[in-house]
Amino acid sequence: MTPISIEETAAFLTQCKDAYILIHRSPDGDCIGSGYSLQAVLKQFGIRSRVLCDDPIPHRFGYLLPDEEEEDFEPQCILSVDVADEALFGSLQERFAGKVDLCVDHHVSNNGYAARLLVEPEASAACEVLYKVYRAMGVKMNKQIAMCLYTGIATDTGCFKYSNASADTHLIVSEIMREFPHIRYDLINREMFTVKTRGQLAAETFMLRNMEYHADGRITIVWATKAICEQHGVDVKDMEGLTSLGLQPEGVEVGITVRERENGEFKVSMRSARDVNVSAICQSLGGGGHVKAAGCTVSGTIDEMRRTLLAAVEAVL
Amino acid sequence: MTPISIEETAAFLTQCKDAYILIHRSPDGDCIGSGYSLQAVLKQFGIRSRVLCDDPIPHRFGYLLPDEEEEDFEPQCILSVDVADEALFGSLQERFAGKVDLCVDHHVSNNGYAARLLVEPEASAACEVLYKVYRAMGVKMNKQIAMCLYTGIATDTGCFKYSNASADTHLIVSEIMREFPHIRYDLINREMFTVKTRGQLAAETFMLRNMEYHADGRITIVWATKAICEQHGVDVKDMEGLTSLGLQPEGVEVGITVRERENGEFKVSMRSARDVNVSAICQSLGGGGHVKAAGCTVSGTIDEMRRTLLAAVEAVL
Repeated sequence: MTPISIEETAAFLTQCKDAYILIHRSPDGDCIGSGYSLQAVLKQFGIRSRVLCDDPIPHRFGYLLPDEEEEDFEPQCILSVDVADEALFGSLQERFAGKVDLCVDHHVSNNGYAARLLVEPEASAACEVLYKVYRAMGVKMNKQIAMCLYTGIATDTGCFKYSNASADTHLIVSEIMREFPHIRYDLINREMFTVKTRGQLAAETFMLRNMEYHADGRITIVWATKAICEQHGVDVKDMEGLTSLGLQPEGVEVGITVRERENGEFKVSMRSARDVNVSAICQSLGGGGHVKAAGCTVSGTIDEMRRTLLAAVEAVL
Repeated sequence: MTPISIEETAAFLTQCKDAYILIHRSPDGDCIGSGYSLQAVLKQFGIRSRVLCDDPIPHRFGYLLPDEEEEDFEPQCILSVDVADEALFGSLQERFAGKVDLCVDHHVSNNGYAARLLVEPEASAACEVLYKVYRAMGVKMNKQIAMCLYTGIATDTGCFKYSNASADTHLIVSEIMREFPHIRYDLINREMFTVKTRGQLAAETFMLRNMEYHADGRITIVWATKAICEQHGVDVKDMEGLTSLGLQPEGVEVGITVRERENGEFKVSMRSARDVNVSAICQSLGGGGHVKAAGCTVSGTIDEMRRTLLAAVEAVL
């Protein structure tokens, strides 16, 4: 693995050919915005590319996708964006492990699996890193690229709420908005941060009513099993937006949201209200992520899961 | 009333003396940030001032207040910030109506009650207008001023979520963050947008469970009477942050939150999801505000209140 600069990344991208762009499973706004903005940028340079993801792109991100069908071809270049670890390729790992030519990322936990690596841990989002790369490439922004980058940055910062939203973040967003003042950013934000189906609202209501307080209220756990989700007509994957529910109560330090993935396997999202490093906690459980927003997978019964998580968090509180 | 420019406002402020700064009743982040930043700025010019509000400043805005006690004096100059109408002075109206020397505001509905008026309807917040005024005054920003301005802008844009957050808005925030990178903006945002007491969470849960859908789901009404608030240990005034609850369901155009103020008098907050002008609707009911966030007061029983509000909204849907 060789760390490379913004300029070297720009140079590499302008000369690549027939690229696959890998994004992580359970795709979010940042990897989707990164992947599809990069595809649009490469297209400007006459380079064809495909975005590959182990999971389908959720419907609400549909406005970021290109109008044309993606053609199939054998890749000559493998890129990844916003992927800290090859394990996050999911089933694509088998085919692409050890073969990534360039990774652009912002996760401090990136384990350096790619031949070339551009990681900016200070950046709020991979889209923030890519914005600088695109500028270095002399890209002419268009509306789709602007919407991709805005979406990636907005979603990864919780709409500029979290500590990763920096002066640079706001400056980049200001530049995007200045160039494209007629994009309805407010409707993007509404779609990303506000809108819920009635089923999701019902699930949220359920979760709020069943929030568990531990360690004198410094830890909250809210969990939903498949059965509960089905009962409320909610797809577990639609609940991504609810991961910070547990940070709402006064005095909480760590909010844990647990969603059943398969029988006996739980997807855990851990959020930090202030200064607890949940990335380290999740790493101790085999996961990873950001200092204030991380995740892992835990197996067992609900009771076992609860004990495992509480022990890991209480060890650092 | 004479409209004046940023520069004329700056000139007027630098030569004023012994000023009262009036903000609106039910004070929010923008008028509090405006008032106390202006007080800190005037202090730099050796001008003493007091911030006057008909209601107490909510506890969670305590970090914006100066350490020193405000001394009392007879005013020689009356200023108002973020106040669109003298009626919003509340009980202070009697003393100050017709006597305001300068008003700085961003409400398009400002009715021009002041001798000098600086209104920028494009600005997301009065704090955004004041930032430009302070720059024109050559103010040396300090941490308190920065926190006031950030708080005003963040709260009035819903943490940059609404359509009033512009390229200018993000640029100003970027400049503030660049100058004061060590302010914990994330903790301000947490306090403003995330933290709720357990009682508030209970009230929110109650409201979500009792959300009324009208006009094929295009209008929602959530309401709370004093009795319900008492039952959940919630102060009606603490519920300010819940005004956009009703915009969460898919397909909704207007979300109405109604809180009982006195027996039989309801404070109505109306929010628009997309393009319905709720300011016009609220004006028709004797209130006012912004295109997408407005308010009014309605009297009567809950049934009467519901009929009145639905008729007014359905007339424009």
